[in-house]
Amino acid sequence: MTTGNRQLENVDPELFGLAVATVDGTIYTAGEANHEFSIQSISKPFAYALALRDGGLERLEARVDAEPSGEKFNEISLESDTGRPRNALINAGALAVRDLVDGTDARHRAQRIAEEMSRLAGRDLVVDDQVYEAELEADDHNQALAHLLRSAGQLDCAPDEVVDGYARQCAIGVDCHDLAMMAAVMANGGMSTSSDEQLIDGQINRHVLSVMATCGMYNGSGNWMSTVGIPAKSGVAGAIIGVLPGQVGVAVFSPRLNQQGNSVRGVAVFERLSRDMELHMMHVIPTGRSALRSVGERDGATVVELQGDIRFAGAEIFASRACEGFATDEIVIDLSEVRVIDDAARRLITEVRERLSEDHRTTVQDPARLLAGR
Amino acid sequence: MTTGNRQLENVDPELFGLAVATVDGTIYTAGEANHEFSIQSISKPFAYALALRDGGLERLEARVDAEPSGEKFNEISLESDTGRPRNALINAGALAVRDLVDGTDARHRAQRIAEEMSRLAGRDLVVDDQVYEAELEADDHNQALAHLLRSAGQLDCAPDEVVDGYARQCAIGVDCHDLAMMAAVMANGGMSTSSDEQLIDGQINRHVLSVMATCGMYNGSGNWMSTVGIPAKSGVAGAIIGVLPGQVGVAVFSPRLNQQGNSVRGVAVFERLSRDMELHMMHVIPTGRSALRSVGERDGATVVELQGDIRFAGAEIFASRACEGFATDEIVIDLSEVRVIDDAARRLITEVRERLSEDHRTTVQDPARLLAGR
Amino acid sequence: MTTGNRQLENVDPELFGLAVATVDGTIYTAGEANHEFSIQSISKPFAYALALRDGGLERLEARVDAEPSGEKFNEISLESDTGRPRNALINAGALAVRDLVDGTDARHRAQRIAEEMSRLAGRDLVVDDQVYEAELEADDHNQALAHLLRSAGQLDCAPDEVVDGYARQCAIGVDCHDLAMMAAVMANGGMSTSSDEQLIDGQINRHVLSVMATCGMYNGSGNWMSTVGIPAKSGVAGAIIGVLPGQVGVAVFSPRLNQQGNSVRGVAVFERLSRDMELHMMHVIPTGRSALRSVGERDGATVVELQGDIRFAGAEIFASRACEGFATDEIVIDLSEVRVIDDAARRLITEVRERLSEDHRTTVQDPARLLAGR
Amino acid sequence: MTTGNRQLENVDPELFGLAVATVDGTIYTAGEANHEFSIQSISKPFAYALALRDGGLERLEARVDAEPSGEKFNEISLESDTGRPRNALINAGALAVRDLVDGTDARHRAQRIAEEMSRLAGRDLVVDDQVYEAELEADDHNQALAHLLRSAGQLDCAPDEVVDGYARQCAIGVDCHDLAMMAAVMANGGMSTSSDEQLIDGQINRHVLSVMATCGMYNGSGNWMSTVGIPAKSGVAGAIIGVLPGQVGVAVFSPRLNQQGNSVRGVAVFERLSRDMELHMMHVIPTGRSALRSVGERDGATVVELQGDIRFAGAEIFASRACEGFATDEIVIDLSEVRVIDDAARRLITEVRERLSEDHRTTVQDPARLLAGR
Repeated sequence: MTTGNRQLENVDPELFGLAVATVDGTIYTAGEANHEFSIQSISKPFAYALALRDGGLERLEARVDAEPSGEKFNEISLESDTGRPRNALINAGALAVRDLVDGTDARHRAQRIAEEMSRLAGRDLVVDDQVYEAELEADDHNQALAHLLRSAGQLDCAPDEVVDGYARQCAIGVDCHDLAMMAAVMANGGMSTSSDEQLIDGQINRHVLSVMATCGMYNGSGNWMSTVGIPAKSGVAGAIIGVLPGQVGVAVFSPRLNQQGNSVRGVAVFERLSRDMELHMMHVIPTGRSALRSVGERDGATVVELQGDIRFAGAEIFASRACEGFATDEIVIDLSEVRVIDDAARRLITEVRERLSEDHRTTVQDPARLLAGR
Repeated sequence: MTTGNRQLENVDPELFGLAVATVDGTIYTAGEANHEFSIQSISKPFAYALALRDGGLERLEARVDAEPSGEKFNEISLESDTGRPRNALINAGALAVRDLVDGTDARHRAQRIAEEMSRLAGRDLVVDDQVYEAELEADDHNQALAHLLRSAGQLDCAPDEVVDGYARQCAIGVDCHDLAMMAAVMANGGMSTSSDEQLIDGQINRHVLSVMATCGMYNGSGNWMSTVGIPAKSGVAGAIIGVLPGQVGVAVFSPRLNQQGNSVRGVAVFERLSRDMELHMMHVIPTGRSALRSVGERDGATVVELQGDIRFAGAEIFASRACEGFATDEIVIDLSEVRVIDDAARRLITEVRERLSEDHRTTVQDPARLLAGR
Repeated sequence: MTTGNRQLENVDPELFGLAVATVDGTIYTAGEANHEFSIQSISKPFAYALALRDGGLERLEARVDAEPSGEKFNEISLESDTGRPRNALINAGALAVRDLVDGTDARHRAQRIAEEMSRLAGRDLVVDDQVYEAELEADDHNQALAHLLRSAGQLDCAPDEVVDGYARQCAIGVDCHDLAMMAAVMANGGMSTSSDEQLIDGQINRHVLSVMATCGMYNGSGNWMSTVGIPAKSGVAGAIIGVLPGQVGVAVFSPRLNQQGNSVRGVAVFERLSRDMELHMMHVIPTGRSALRSVGERDGATVVELQGDIRFAGAEIFASRACEGFATDEIVIDLSEVRVIDDAARRLITEVRERLSEDHRTTVQDPARLLAGR
Repeated sequence: MTTGNRQLENVDPELFGLAVATVDGTIYTAGEANHEFSIQSISKPFAYALALRDGGLERLEARVDAEPSGEKFNEISLESDTGRPRNALINAGALAVRDLVDGTDARHRAQRIAEEMSRLAGRDLVVDDQVYEAELEADDHNQALAHLLRSAGQLDCAPDEVVDGYARQCAIGVDCHDLAMMAAVMANGGMSTSSDEQLIDGQINRHVLSVMATCGMYNGSGNWMSTVGIPAKSGVAGAIIGVLPGQVGVAVFSPRLNQQGNSVRGVAVFERLSRDMELHMMHVIPTGRSALRSVGERDGATVVELQGDIRFAGAEIFASRACEGFATDEIVIDLSEVRVIDDAARRLITEVRERLSEDHRTTVQDPARLLAGR
């Protein structure tokens, strides 16, 4: 496949870079992880996240659906009943999304998107003017999409401005290190991996990841989910990012593209990561141990020890046991061995504790202050 | 929506049942969780899993793709280039799948599928003859699909037999308790929630869950992933099952259907579960604590404590720290506070331990024998 | 292209036959014009005509549309809003049409269609049992279509019966001489070319020809109209018939098929006929002479001579001249040089004559009794 | 339906005009036949004819197909394999066609199209600037189509220029009288109805009429052919033209549109014309008389009289009779009663005459010099 952009054509097809960033803030790189290229379509989920923040989910949903399209990235069709693009990760959707990013003009909107991505990447990302100009030379297809959206009443800005801004957004220069950092933030629920700052709202992050899971690899999204199982997004410059929620962000770069317009080596790397490292969303570790570590007595008190990562199911086991009642007057809920706890589990445990307090002296050992929440 | 099956039409639309089964084997029920109904399309993922075991992934892939269709459950189209149905969860795919389940005839194949599901449900499930006969009365659409598959060279059995067998499979009687148990096995990576038995091969389980995630709710799969985020499958009798990997299996039953043919109250329940209990695949708990609990010295030895649920990313942190080297001669790797560990993490930790052993006296405290694996 | 029917596969691909029958009853033949083959899809327009007689246009229109499909002959889709096949000349439509032919069963219906075609061909046509049986062996696609129609509520008969009957209809043996005779009847407005018998009702004949013009050559109908300009229908045995209204019926037979399933030499012959003999519906002979041959005086009377083939436009010229008035007391309308006259022209001339009679002595010279009508 | 053009919205929906022009040059009008409106889509066949003259059929065919689309006039799709619009009468095709009209810029091309139409209408037609400007205000859909064509490599001009030029072309002011005159020229094989001037090349005229027959009424072309049977084209201002080859050109104007965007009263008028005046292409007058009027002897010579309108079929009857031989030495071929004769018939009669001359003294009575040709 050729890219139709002369700036992209001049790149060494054998280049290869890889970066893996964990939610703990550690980053591993291999090859030319600092080689810079244009972000292209990988900008779509980040622009989508920004538009969701600026415009709100409801307004976005009225403009762009969230269904896999079953067609190519540049399909020129809107939903027959609603006039919406099928999702925000095909070109039609990406243009509609830009329209809902706040900004005074194309340049300003592109600037805000670049700033947003810079915050995630941890360094200043800027538009590559040569790539931008080359984009504009071959923009008839996007012009067609923008005018189509406009004629369907789905675009407020002028088509020219939207296409110009999208060209700028696609021309932002990044490297694998940047993209892995950005992906790791999404893997971390939108929170920075190096501070407590929530860079992307949790609900928005979840929504964007969901759309990446079902629509991110265009008309191959279903097979990608089966064989790789990592929500992902590819760009025509030869990069692919992947986000494994709660674990890692991955970015690969290698310019040679396959028929679907995805990086040949990029796809291979993801398939290996999924197979060899079990980085697959549907991969389950059958539980060897319960979240309920132990229920015992110590010094006349019942000690209930929880352990590991506590979500709803884990908290339920505790609640279930509590229903059976405890013989002692005093109860100690020991969270020392718990690593993380989510909101639903926190609420449930707090409720149980309050209920127990009616009849028992109840204390909680929570050295990491997990029950206090974030 | 009407179902076209007179047996289904006679049911009280206000019936409601709910069951939630955790991967720990606990099951919660509400309403008419023991009211029996026909499994209908919810049989599809389980028949698919059996066909994958009997025929192998490669053979299945040659017959059925794994892409969302963007169309209705009964769409009468095959991929123009390959002649395959788009996925195994639309009717065309379900019929093609049946063809690859071993068996001497339609009855035998249906029997094997019923037995397979019985193992997961933990009780004997049988075909409801009245429902089966009513299915056959309105089977023209499935007959059309089966003949189409046959004419495309994608069916070895006679179309009549395939349609007959599919009618039997859909007429198997279940209740919410059964379905939640079956879903919980999938949530548990295919392993029984009450014993160590691997009921569904892990790879097959992962594949089926992936297809449920992208294709399970037909042409609404994308929005289902965004708003609910639980791989699911609905049936025309009014049931929906959901599988949250590593956590729970859920089954709801309520006969009133919406326009898409999904249970109205079933959809509402799943939306609440997702929202209130954060049972969403893309929901991430930003890490409060590292998998690396502590690195300290005790009695002249370095003690490295890991904690929580250890996957690749967690093990990487340990490996990364190990690369920096340790000052003491003796090293203790303490896994006492680890709840579960997956294969990739196990391999990585084992490698690091072996490398450390070259220069250090290295011991592992692993009371639950997690490093020994299953 | 292969035909999927082993009886058709065994034919010498080099066979060639041609027959041209004029509306005057003359027939010219070349090559193997008496070589017999199965009529296949060329039976569709004749079965359509019979169903239109049995069921009436309104009933047929509720079941089958009359629009080009833009797809292949065996497309497996119905109109999304009405559930109708796009037209009667694709397989789905031909099956729906059969349902509206009167008859007690498949055999009887096929018998009636064979009899109808025999009347047009002028000899007894019968089903070739070997071809019929071979059709049934590869009927999955038609089974699919029939079941689809049934499931859409568009079929009263059992799908099996409809497919069986269609297989019989397609297996009727004909030769080029037969087909040219049949086509010539259609070219002659449905009237026999050798007697005054109206074999196909004029309105029905017009309707069927219209559908042949826009849908007869499947997804190549538009280009066929441009390059050939003759309403036509092809069959998979290698025959093509063409009907040029008012002029000729043509039949070509040569078994080698092109990609579209049309006879290679058949297409070539039609292209030559159209080009060399100007047998193109849109070919116009710019008028050298008016239908109004002369207006003169003879023996004190005004003599108005008409000539040639008089349709609406020709009669209008006469009416227009009559409006200007005539100076003489006596008027002679001379139709001696008129060859044919249609109903609209007859009505108009009669009206003018009656109007003239109010003020003039008006006589008509009409040796062929054209004004008396048929 | 609304037109999206504010200039069109302000027109009295009850206006009605009708004009019928015969190939003999007579024109009948009724109602507001001189009320002027914008030609809109009715310009398409005339611009197509001009592009065919400028660019040649082969070049046009490489850019625009000639197949019915089965979709709406403004469908935004190109053929997946060739990138061509389906035909020249949908908007995509009309834009592609403009690109092949010679001219220095949009204004010049529109000027040439206006001049071409002026020649047919017999008076100077000019662009209505108010309509043109209103067109430009709502041109997003056409912009989308033009950019799509450009991106598919099917457009040489700038999209802006093509859309601007098309807006001008659509804004040309006409009345029913004009349109009927223009249609009559097409009905007359491209020749002026008042002089011997060939205004549209015969081959091009035939091609354009063919496309009007199969594609002129968009996705209702098949039913239009069945019920009306007149190649036609409608415009969003409320006009419809029809061309019955060899007979008449018809134009109706009435602004109220139906769901398909066709004039409600316009459609009704055409249905009545077709039914009451038998103005249907597939309407056949079964021949009462042969083209061979008589074969007799007079003064020792055989006199062969032909009559009426002689095409291929008629000439064949003569040729057939000639093959049987004549007993006399002298033969007279009498064409006095022949009205018109086409090229194929002329060639055949000339050949037969030459053959007869080898053995007979052969003379031709041809007072209108029909055998000499045009």
